[in-house]
Parts: sequence; C-alpha cells; structure tokens
Amino acid sequence: MLLHEDRLFPSESSALKIARSLYAGIRNLPIVSPHGHTQAAWFAENKPFPDPAALLVQPDHYVFRMLYSQGVSMDDLEIGQPVVKDPRRVWRIFASHYYLFRGTPTRMWLDYAFQELFGMTERLSEKTADVYFDAIAEKLKTPEFLPRALYERFNLEVLSTTESPLDPLEAHQAIRDSGWKARIVPSFRPDPVVDPESKGFAGSIAQLGEQNGEDTATWKGYLNALRKARARFKTLGCTSTDHGHPTAQTADLTQADAAALFGKVLAGKADAAEQELFRAQMLTEMARMSLEDGLVMQIHPGSVRNHNKFVCERYGRDTGSDIPSATDYVHALRPLLDRFGNEKNLTIILFTLDETSYSRELAPLAGHYPCLRLGPSWWFHDSPEGMMRFREQVTETAGFYNTVGFNDDTRAFLSIPARHDVARRVDCAFLARLVAEHRLDEDEAHELAHQLTIDLVKKAYRL
Amino acid sequence: MLLHEDRLFPSESSALKIARSLYAGIRNLPIVSPHGHTQAAWFAENKPFPDPAALLVQPDHYVFRMLYSQGVSMDDLEIGQPVVKDPRRVWRIFASHYYLFRGTPTRMWLDYAFQELFGMTERLSEKTADVYFDAIAEKLKTPEFLPRALYERFNLEVLSTTESPLDPLEAHQAIRDSGWKARIVPSFRPDPVVDPESKGFAGSIAQLGEQNGEDTATWKGYLNALRKARARFKTLGCTSTDHGHPTAQTADLTQADAAALFGKVLAGKADAAEQELFRAQMLTEMARMSLEDGLVMQIHPGSVRNHNKFVCERYGRDTGSDIPSATDYVHALRPLLDRFGNEKNLTIILFTLDETSYSRELAPLAGHYPCLRLGPSWWFHDSPEGMMRFREQVTETAGFYNTVGFNDDTRAFLSIPARHDVARRVDCAFLARLVAEHRLDEDEAHELAHQLTIDLVKKAYRL
Amino acid sequence: MLLHEDRLFPSESSALKIARSLYAGIRNLPIVSPHGHTQAAWFAENKPFPDPAALLVQPDHYVFRMLYSQGVSMDDLEIGQPVVKDPRRVWRIFASHYYLFRGTPTRMWLDYAFQELFGMTERLSEKTADVYFDAIAEKLKTPEFLPRALYERFNLEVLSTTESPLDPLEAHQAIRDSGWKARIVPSFRPDPVVDPESKGFAGSIAQLGEQNGEDTATWKGYLNALRKARARFKTLGCTSTDHGHPTAQTADLTQADAAALFGKVLAGKADAAEQELFRAQMLTEMARMSLEDGLVMQIHPGSVRNHNKFVCERYGRDTGSDIPSATDYVHALRPLLDRFGNEKNLTIILFTLDETSYSRELAPLAGHYPCLRLGPSWWFHDSPEGMMRFREQVTETAGFYNTVGFNDDTRAFLSIPARHDVARRVDCAFLARLVAEHRLDEDEAHELAHQLTIDLVKKAYRL
Repeated sequence: MLLHEDRLFPSESSALKIARSLYAGIRNLPIVSPHGHTQAAWFAENKPFPDPAALLVQPDHYVFRMLYSQGVSMDDLEIGQPVVKDPRRVWRIFASHYYLFRGTPTRMWLDYAFQELFGMTERLSEKTADVYFDAIAEKLKTPEFLPRALYERFNLEVLSTTESPLDPLEAHQAIRDSGWKARIVPSFRPDPVVDPESKGFAGSIAQLGEQNGEDTATWKGYLNALRKARARFKTLGCTSTDHGHPTAQTADLTQADAAALFGKVLAGKADAAEQELFRAQMLTEMARMSLEDGLVMQIHPGSVRNHNKFVCERYGRDTGSDIPSATDYVHALRPLLDRFGNEKNLTIILFTLDETSYSRELAPLAGHYPCLRLGPSWWFHDSPEGMMRFREQVTETAGFYNTVGFNDDTRAFLSIPARHDVARRVDCAFLARLVAEHRLDEDEAHELAHQLTIDLVKKAYRL
Repeated sequence: MLLHEDRLFPSESSALKIARSLYAGIRNLPIVSPHGHTQAAWFAENKPFPDPAALLVQPDHYVFRMLYSQGVSMDDLEIGQPVVKDPRRVWRIFASHYYLFRGTPTRMWLDYAFQELFGMTERLSEKTADVYFDAIAEKLKTPEFLPRALYERFNLEVLSTTESPLDPLEAHQAIRDSGWKARIVPSFRPDPVVDPESKGFAGSIAQLGEQNGEDTATWKGYLNALRKARARFKTLGCTSTDHGHPTAQTADLTQADAAALFGKVLAGKADAAEQELFRAQMLTEMARMSLEDGLVMQIHPGSVRNHNKFVCERYGRDTGSDIPSATDYVHALRPLLDRFGNEKNLTIILFTLDETSYSRELAPLAGHYPCLRLGPSWWFHDSPEGMMRFREQVTETAGFYNTVGFNDDTRAFLSIPARHDVARRVDCAFLARLVAEHRLDEDEAHELAHQLTIDLVKKAYRL
Repeated sequence: MLLHEDRLFPSESSALKIARSLYAGIRNLPIVSPHGHTQAAWFAENKPFPDPAALLVQPDHYVFRMLYSQGVSMDDLEIGQPVVKDPRRVWRIFASHYYLFRGTPTRMWLDYAFQELFGMTERLSEKTADVYFDAIAEKLKTPEFLPRALYERFNLEVLSTTESPLDPLEAHQAIRDSGWKARIVPSFRPDPVVDPESKGFAGSIAQLGEQNGEDTATWKGYLNALRKARARFKTLGCTSTDHGHPTAQTADLTQADAAALFGKVLAGKADAAEQELFRAQMLTEMARMSLEDGLVMQIHPGSVRNHNKFVCERYGRDTGSDIPSATDYVHALRPLLDRFGNEKNLTIILFTLDETSYSRELAPLAGHYPCLRLGPSWWFHDSPEGMMRFREQVTETAGFYNTVGFNDDTRAFLSIPARHDVARRVDCAFLARLVAEHRLDEDEAHELAHQLTIDLVKKAYRL
C-alpha cells in the first residue's frame, strides 16, 4: 500500500494509541470546505475530467513549481496551455520526477488519491508511469469519476468556491437549477475591483457599475454596487468574503477623503502609496458592509505575487512564483480595529504566510479582539509540520476556540479528501500529545477533535 | 484529580524516567521570584483576599482577555471596577467559559491552585461553578489563606515587586517594621519618569525632584534625583531595575546633547523621534548608574501597549490589549554596548516578545557580551511550548549559563507556585530529552536543574 | 566514554531503530567538504600543530566567545596573539570553564575529537585539565597527527578552503606540486575587492589590476581582472565563489550606470547607500560570470560584523562578535533573479542567519527558481536543533533535492569529522522520524541519507 493507517501520528506508543482513538471518532465525518478554488462549472456541467495530466499536473502549481525548480521545462509540461496535447508525455515527465516530492505534502495528497481513488498500490515512478496513466485515464471515463459523483463520494457537506464580484455566477445558478442537492457556494473576492493594481481595474469598476445599476464613477455608487454584488452572492449561499492584499494594511479615512482617493485611483493618477492606502481603506469598508450583511471576512495578506517576471509573462498568473514576505499585523490592522474591533457581530478571519506572526501578533490579537479569528496554516504552511507549528504557536495564547478549523484552499479537486485527512490526523496528533503529556483530558480531546473538524468551521463561517 | 503527577514530561518512557528523576531533585526547592507584579501592601496589611472573582478573575488579564475574545462582556465581568459587586455572577460566567482555556497555561495555573490550595477534584464548569465558589470563598476567610500564610506555604525565599521611583514604598517599609521575616523587595521601574509619553510626565519629573531634594528642571538634577531614588530602593532590598520601553533602542549622546534633549522633552516640545531618542539615552544612563550602584538592569521591550483604544479608555491600562511587535536588538543595543558592553560588573537581562530574536540576535549577543544575560520566555511565551522554544533556540549558542532561571512576572499571587512548577517541569523535560538523546550526561542534568531553579537566579539578580 | 553510540537519535524505540539503520549505511562514507576556512598552508607545509591551546582554543571563536561572555579575559586566553606563550595556562582556564558548553554543539565537537583522536574517556574539567593537555600535546608530536595524516584519517574526499582573489594560492600550488593526492581546492571570495567598506579597498583594486594585467581604474578592466582571477582559481580546482555581504541585496544597473558607480566607489566618494548598491550590483555581475565560467555562487548574507567595537579594535576581526540580523531575500534577490533566475546552468546557493526566512522565503524561492539551492543551516544554527529546524521548515516546500548537503564551514580542522558526524546523525534522525510516522518509506530514506551525505553535495558544487 502507498499509505499507512497510522501515518502522521506520533510513533511513541502512548500518544499513538490516543491519536488512533481520536481519529477514529472523526475520520468519517463529512467534509466542510469553507474556502477553496475549485470550479463551480465542473459541477454544473458534470463532464468527465479530460486526462491524468490535465487533472493532476497542469493545474497544480505545487506540482509544477517543484519540477520547474529542478530544471524541468514548463513548456514540456504544457503549463498555461488550454488543452494538454500530449498528456502521456507530460505524465511520464512527472512520474520520472516523482521522487522530488519526498517529504512534501504534495506527495501525501497525491498518494492518497492514487490509492483511495485509483486503487494504485505501487509507488509512482518512471517505471510505473504508464500503468498509472492508463489506470487513471480509464477510471476518469466512468460515471463514478464524474464531478458530482466524486463530490458525493468525498462526503462533502459544503464546498465554497471563490469568485470575482464581476462573475455572473451562472454555474452556481445552474447547480441550483439542476435540483442536485449539493451545497456549493461562492465566496466574494473583490480584489479585481478594490485593488488598483489589478489588470484592467478601471474597466472592472465600470463593469461593476453596469452589472449593478450604479454609477461607479462616484464613491457612493461604487460602494452601492459592491453592496448589491454582495447581496447577489448571498442569494446563492455565499457567507464570506476574501481579500488577497499584498499587506494587511487597513485605513480609516473620512468618507470625503476616501471619495477623493477613489477618484484619483480610478483616474489612474494614484501612486504606489495611494494605491496601498486605497486597498487599506477598502478593507475597512468591507468590514463595515460585513456588519450590515453578515458576511464573514477573510484576509489573506503577504504574498508577493508573480515574483518571477519571465514565468508570469510567458505562462500567466498563479504559476508557482508567488513568494511570501514578512507581514505586519499589529500596526496594519489598527485602523480597522479601532473602528470595528469590538463588534461582536463581525467576524474577520486572519491568515498569514509569515509564521513568525503566529505567536507574536496573531494569537495575541485573536486572543483579545472579539471580531478576530485565526484561519488555519495557509499555502506553503498547509503541511504536517506547518499545521503542527500553527497549533503549537497559537493555542497557548488564543486557545482552540479562536481558530476556525481547516481550509483546503485548493484548485485540485481530487486533493480535497486527502488534505482534510491530513488536517484531521495532525490535529489528532497534536491533541494526543497534549493528552499524553497530561496537559488536556482525553474526553476534552475527543470533544475538541469534533469541534476542530466541524463545529468551529460552521460557526466561524456561519454555515 | 485535576493534575497528573507526570504532566509536562515527555511521554516517551526513557525520557520520562529521567524527567521524573530530575524533577524529584528540585520540586521542593524554595521559590526565588526576582521579578513580578504582586502588591507589597497585601503582605503589609495581611488582610484576607475578598472573594473568588476579585482574586482569580478580575485582576488576571490572561483570564478576561480570553473571555472577551469570545464575546463575554467586560462590564459583566466587572473589569476595572474598584470592588466586584456580584462576585458569584462573575464567577459563574467565568466557570461556564472555562473550556476556552483548554490547551493554555492559564488552565494549568488555575487547576494547580484549585487542586493544591482549594482541594478541588472535579473540573471547573458551569455545573461546578457554585461548588467552587463556595469552597474558595470559605477558605479565603481562614488564617491559612492570609497573604503572609500563603507566602510561607508557597515556600518563597525572595519575592520582588515592581514600583515607580515615585512610590513611597510604605508597604515595603511596613513589612520590614513588622518584624515578619520575609524577603519582599522592590524593583526600580522608572518608566513614568523616563518615558515622555507617560501620562503626566512633567508632573512626575517635578515630583521626583521634590521627593529627592533635587532640581529636576535641569539634566544634572534629574540624574541626581534618579540616583537618590535608586539608593532609597536599595535600602529596602532592591537589587534590580526594570525598563518597559516600546523598543530596545539605546543611544549614547554627549551629556550636552542629552541635557538639551531633556529640556525639549520636559517642555513637551519633543516629537515622536525625540521622545524615542530620550528613552534610548535613558537606558544608557541607567546602565551607567548600574555600574555605580550595582543594580541589575532588566529590559522588557516590544509591547504595543493599549492596542485596543476603546478597551483602554473604558477599562484602563493593563486590561489585556497589549500586543507584541517585531523587535530589533542587534542595531538597537549597539550604542549602549559600545559604551558599556564589555563591563564585567554590569548585568543587563534582556527579554523579548518576539521569539524570532532568540536564535538570531539574543543568544548570539548573550553568548558574547559579558554584561548580557537572557531573561526567560516572557508573557505570552511564558507557557510550556514557549519555554521549550526558548531553551531549544537559545541553549546551543548562549548555553545555560547566560540565562537567569525563571520569572513568574505575575499579578496573580496564587499562580506563583503553579508557574514555578510549570517552569521546573519544562526545564526537566528539556534536560531529560538532552540526556535521553545522549547530548548531556545525567549528572550534569541534575546539577543544571538545580542551577536553573536557584543558583543562576540568585547570581544574576545579585540576591 | 564521552560519546554514546546513539547520540542525537530519537529516544523513541521505533524511530531509534530506523535511525541506527540509516546511520549504519552512511557513517563510513568519505567526507566531502565543499565550504570551509581551513588553511591550505597546513597541508602544504605539513608541520605539527603547536600545542593544545593553539590548536583548540585560540582559533575557535565558538570557544572563546562563550568564555568571554562569562567574564573570562581574552588577554588571559591570548586571543589575537601570533603565538600562545603559556598554552598550559590557557588550557587550564578553558578546562575549568568547560561546563559552560553543556548543551552546545561545541561540547559535542570537542568531545568527539577528545575521544576519537586523543583517546580521552573522562570529561574535561579543571581536574582533568593537565591530563588532557599532556595527552594531546604528546600526540601532536607524532606523525599520525601531522595535517596530511589527519586529512587521510578523516577520510576527506574533497576539502575546499576560502581565499581572496588577491591570494597567490601558493599553498594550493605547493600541494599540487608535492604530488600528494589530496583534493584541496580554493573557493573564490571576492569581498575584499567588491565591498567598498573593506579595509584598503582602493589598494586592493589596484593590486587586483596588477596581478591580472588589467587597468582596474576602469569598470571594464575591473571586470576583466575578476574574470582572470576566477580563471586562475579554476586552474587549481576551484568550483565555487562565496559572497559574505551584509544583506542579500542585488541590483541590475545598466553597464553605464554600473561603471559610473564603480568610479565613485573607487574614488571613495560613495555614501553608504551607494556602497550597498555597488555590492548589490556585484552579486549580479558575479552571477553573469558564473554563467560564463560555471563557478557555483554561494551567498552568505546577514551578519553584522564586528558588533563589539572594543573587541574588534583590540583583538582583530573574526573574534566572536559577529551577530546575525533580520534578512530579506524576497525583495533583495529580485533584480538578480529577474535577470538570471531562470537559467538552468547557473547555481546559486543561499545561506541565512535568519531562520525566519526558511519557511517564509528561502524554501518557496528554491522550490521554484531553477538556479537556486539552499545551503545547510549556517554558523550559529549549525547545531542539532538548528539543523532539525532547517529540515522541518524547508523540506515540505523545497523538498530534499533543492538542498545541498552539509558544510562544515570551519576554521577548526579537528572538528571536521565531528561536525559531519553530527550532520549525518541529525539527518538520519529527521529521516527516521518521517519513516516512523509513515511519511516516507524506509528504502527512500536510505537513498536520501546517501544523497544528503554525498550526491547532492557533489552535484550542487560541481565536484
């Protein structure tokens, strides 16, 4: 077998026994996925996934960034192409470099899919490349591997996607109209219409106005259009917004100053500092709207996007060269918190790519402000060691109850059960250590395992 | 029972056995508490503590910040009120939210007091709230629970409090005059008269002058008044000073420049940078005086005080919204170290709220400069995981002998034995791992356990 | 015995068994040492090492910085003196303070040499000082302890030293000429001729010109001289360059701007920012030359050199007061990476003294850019805990294959086998944990143990 039943548990026998027991209590719980990047269209159309390379290699930047780092050509992998022309060739390249993933979560996620979904038992390698390719390709043609069938097989209770305010949400509507009883909901990600550095920003603002019957040339019309767009998302089940800013900076300008800044930004006359100030102000505006309409805010700051100019220009965005940078929260969030930090009806979930902020800033902030919660370890840190560091560095100050369970945050649909399984196992491993060291009673650990898996997620995301 | 005999020890059997043996050698040693925030008046007056809520909830910002973060009202908890009007109601709120502390050191400190002092055996919860309240309230009325009796029961050898230079130290004097043979000593914390941002700064400087018969309108008189105030503290057993600056910045101005800056600061004409420069210069002045009078310096930098404007305005200072921020030492300390860094008769104990500085700056600095020692993990990091990170990240570069044992640093008198017990257990757990991994001999670990508990504390603090 | 056979392995029995097995497969492999600071002259001359103090105390800043931090006088240790006048006295001071090294890697390195080379079995202390001194002094006079004999005994396959471009490399030439079949190669460290803050910078540039027959008063001549110096190093086996800048800043100026900046720098008219910009530009120039001549680049940024002014002035450079500081890579490296980051034929090995960059910046960068590799944990972090943090924080994002094995980086020749042994043990301990937690198969761990010890080193350094 590719996977061991006790994987990710402590090897020490007393803690191992506790971890097994905790995991037994939660392994079969449904999956609540409140944040991610799958495509609603897959479920609306319910068409077969094309081939192993298009499914597992081409869309997964975790996979091809590692291959690229070791000299594999992104042209050879057909990254950024609309269709994979020679999927077997791509697959063979991938298979022959599979050893590169030793020790990485990608390896664990893929092995899970290989074993649990495709029944593979021998490790992927150059030697087994074709056996894998054929087996996967064949299964993908069967009804059991259509998107809706997989959704049900994965025991998903909720699946949230992430969309621009400009998205017509036709796929979400189509799912609803189809009568299929799945809870697939959009999350409202306004970056294209609040970040002046977004491509085609002015056009997007105009489009936002048209779609919502507002004059977005004015600050007031712009805010109203955003309100209406949020309301439209809510009718399709949306419970959250998401904000992917370069920093966590917030601002609390007067409405007159904000209106003037908006005018300058829209006219393309704002410099870098003013663009940053505008994004900062918009976080506070979004918090204000969240108080009105109840949408939960998620802030995902600190990624230097498209660090590799050549790769971005040739292969497009989101192709593996986003790099984290040091991120301040304590000063950056203060304007927003001064304004809304003590609101009990507001929920802001904070994420970080800078693990140094866990114990220094995020846990102290979330352990005090009623509106703040901590999102799980994110992106590069969404891994066994990363998840463990999160719990170790956050729990003692913020407790468990200021955290919100797991996000798979993935574009790779097939990795969802694997990712949730890893998160459940690591949480059980952490709890088991606390119990084995007599820092928590076992009955409390069982209760917490369930809460971390289901209850805290639903509560935080208002699902 | 609420507590297990092996709590905080490694669960692996060979390390567990060593940890037990090390702990057995130190568990009954007296407590040396060289830094904290208890009130000398408790011991001078020796009156009963009023009630469970006033004793365990209202003064403990670790407790109520967590409750507040989860939506409990600070009004309901009667935070900031001179007297708790409805202690049973406050206690019930606390008890019904006690599960929030799972996995936190607060839980462990409280359970220790509940079991060891009040004989409780069932976990605190909504259900057991009244049983606890009644049992604790009853005991507080007994002579065994008067402050002096507890001091003796806790086996305290030294207890240091922290006072402003303006404090008349009447309570300290009264303890001495009473003939009670306890060693309760003040620490000299000059923030109110060296930090221009302190409330009523100019008034404090004037008061400092009056109290010490110096003209504090002049730089020279100001320094002399500080010298005299330090001398007055020394007569009551003081061996240390303490400095809680926003940063670790030091400066080494000429005396003429320092005098001019003092004039500007005193006149209220200094801008933020000049206020920071004045604080920086005063650290160097305090080091100079320490060379003269032998007081050990403690520097506690890096807290953004009163981050929550609303909470500070409504409930006062020290109410749970101080948040750490990134803190530089390598550049900030250089002016002071250029001047006094190689003095063997000077001791400066450095603390941090930014754990990233442990391995990067603090251990390398303390592992070189003769005047520097590292204080234990502080505040949010004064926890099992935090203490372990401190030892893991500091020991390999600075060794054990550039550290100074444990500080309980608490306002919560009843938590003192619990906190020292946690520290002793974590030190034993760390030493046991080194022995179990054959990185240290067991006889050395026994010697170190004693030194970390007693000898290094007394030596560093000159007790 | 001073050392236990299972030292540094996990104490948990299942992981311990795996660690032992992994270590058995690599413990006797030859040592490849691609980066360090031993002296080629030792091997050219092959003279006996003078005495225990001159061999083990005086040149080792790890040793005397710790002694100094605890009040031992550097004068008494005869630091910075050409010859140790009273070696027995120095040795006794060292021995009586040997307990200070408890828990440090220095203790483990020294104990290894004491036991494996000198046959000591009782711990070094004040009591055993003379026994040690006499035993070591006697052995140093024997042929078995001549530098070449030790080189062979240590089973060194490659040993790289580090030299200035101005170094005539006579010792390296002499080793070659002697016919002795050892592979001792220089590394090209141009700091004295690319860092305007280097002592005697202008004179060094002139000397560089004379040695290479170029007019280094011009930018073009300067670059040509560097090219020729690199070529000269290559003829003696050099495969790498090394760059010890204060920061990781790079730049990509036009050649005209670079030439103008060079003129200003050479004239001594550049301010601090321009000096930094010049160093930044030179990293990019060095990368350009590496693409031409194939030398592998190493970047070692982030040390604040000679932090202790007094110690530097009195005892010289490299005397234990270099202190790490926070180091940015994500922004700093961008100019160089924009220019050359996608070159498959370029290898740049990044090091850090700021462990926060492991998971936040370095692993994400190396897990994407084809030219980047991560050097092992460096200097203060070259320790059991430090090495473990490196693997734990880097592997999940960058994998094992973007790392380059171990560097001993030492001036202390006798510590080389000890240091490599520690690295091998820690790697085995890390791999064993992955296997014991079923995150890696045991056959893969065996393969990786060999690759981390030999193959990845040779590949990265083109040896």
